[in-house]
Amino acid sequence: MISDADHLADSKEQKQESTEVALESHSEEELANRKQSRRKEIEGPIPHLSSAMSRPAHRRPEYHKINKDLFVLTYGALVAQLCKDYEKDEDVNKYLDKMGHGIGTRLVEDFLARSCVRRCHSYSEIIDIIAQVAFKMYLGITPSVACNNSSRNEFSLILDKNPLVEFVEELPAGRTSLCYCNLLCGIIRGALEMVHLDADVAFLQDRLKGDSVTEIGITFLKKPDEKKYRRKK
Amino acid sequence: MISDADHLADSKEQKQESTEVALESHSEEELANRKQSRRKEIEGPIPHLSSAMSRPAHRRPEYHKINKDLFVLTYGALVAQLCKDYEKDEDVNKYLDKMGHGIGTRLVEDFLARSCVRRCHSYSEIIDIIAQVAFKMYLGITPSVACNNSSRNEFSLILDKNPLVEFVEELPAGRTSLCYCNLLCGIIRGALEMVHLDADVAFLQDRLKGDSVTEIGITFLKKPDEKKYRRKK
Repeated sequence: MISDADHLADSKEQKQESTEVALESHSEEELANRKQSRRKEIEGPIPHLSSAMSRPAHRRPEYHKINKDLFVLTYGALVAQLCKDYEKDEDVNKYLDKMGHGIGTRLVEDFLARSCVRRCHSYSEIIDIIAQVAFKMYLGITPSVACNNSSRNEFSLILDKNPLVEFVEELPAGRTSLCYCNLLCGIIRGALEMVHLDADVAFLQDRLKGDSVTEIGITFLKKPDEKKYRRKK
Repeated sequence: MISDADHLADSKEQKQESTEVALESHSEEELANRKQSRRKEIEGPIPHLSSAMSRPAHRRPEYHKINKDLFVLTYGALVAQLCKDYEKDEDVNKYLDKMGHGIGTRLVEDFLARSCVRRCHSYSEIIDIIAQVAFKMYLGITPSVACNNSSRNEFSLILDKNPLVEFVEELPAGRTSLCYCNLLCGIIRGALEMVHLDADVAFLQDRLKGDSVTEIGITFLKKPDEKKYRRKK
């Protein structure tokens, strides 16, 4: 297991797996330029406000910590609003994922600027960064990681505790298929997409549904041109 | 100006104003009992999930700090969803206030348990606690405070910076009357209501609307039986 960002940087040379990905730290200027060019490519899933939801390039990101309860309760209000808007749990889940995707595409740039992570050379390294750096930074928890297949592109993040459900005793009546925290899946998917990694992200287990743990499954989808790309090198 | 919680506690004896209010710290057990009894009184404004959004009484509140960006972006997604749902800005504003009220009624108990504030004896003391303890804890900022009238029940919180709008360049097109951060007004109103204080809370100025500062006005509404109550003492 990789224990911190410095270790991640040191492990750069190890190349345990051959999949090289573009997860590296960037200067704020680089990030601003990338953001400008990508803004046209990526359709923001946040309705109406999409054009207004980007941080101005000239403003330095500030690192502020806040108490999580306000976030947790506001998230509850968001889920409640979606439950009001959409009758089917599947539609609420889809919308949460879509919203999360939009948040992830915006969040990843600040994450790369603030965290000291360097270029990763394997899916394992990426998963470790998500679990140990990103989850710690944004939710104050560090999920454990499991690899689920021999080709090492299917992983699980296992959450012993989940701050997002701290005020939730149980799923609301008649909402048994609701993936209450599906925003997280969308965020991970959107953030990975911004570093050119396609992935399926979904809850495999959920304590709110009676499972013993909460488990998020992440499957990296190998691109058709990945082999070709490597041949060119 | 009162500078910290200890000072607030020391100032207990000063009694600059005679309005005594029930803002004091409580044990977790007391809070759980109060919550149980108040749950029946207060109709939660969070639809569908209202019964599921309360922290179980046996669970100790944990003090976790998180990076604020995830909250700020999630709040943006909530406002965007409400803009999708409600055509009129006034309806979005009302709904944000209503949601905030529900959040405030839940948040205040943890705030009282975690902060070390004692019983306050004036509206000024309460405003200072909101500005210097609550805003600092939940949003990482400390607004300045101004008293707006001689009877000392009208105050302003003046925000030099507002983390909630950090990713917002401008209000979305056609949404010129939107009070983007109206959730905050509802939260303050809801939290004050839980300590038996009725107040009008509204944005008086907003940088997103071209004003030079962002200003939240808080007017404490004196209760008809306040004088009677004081006579009894």
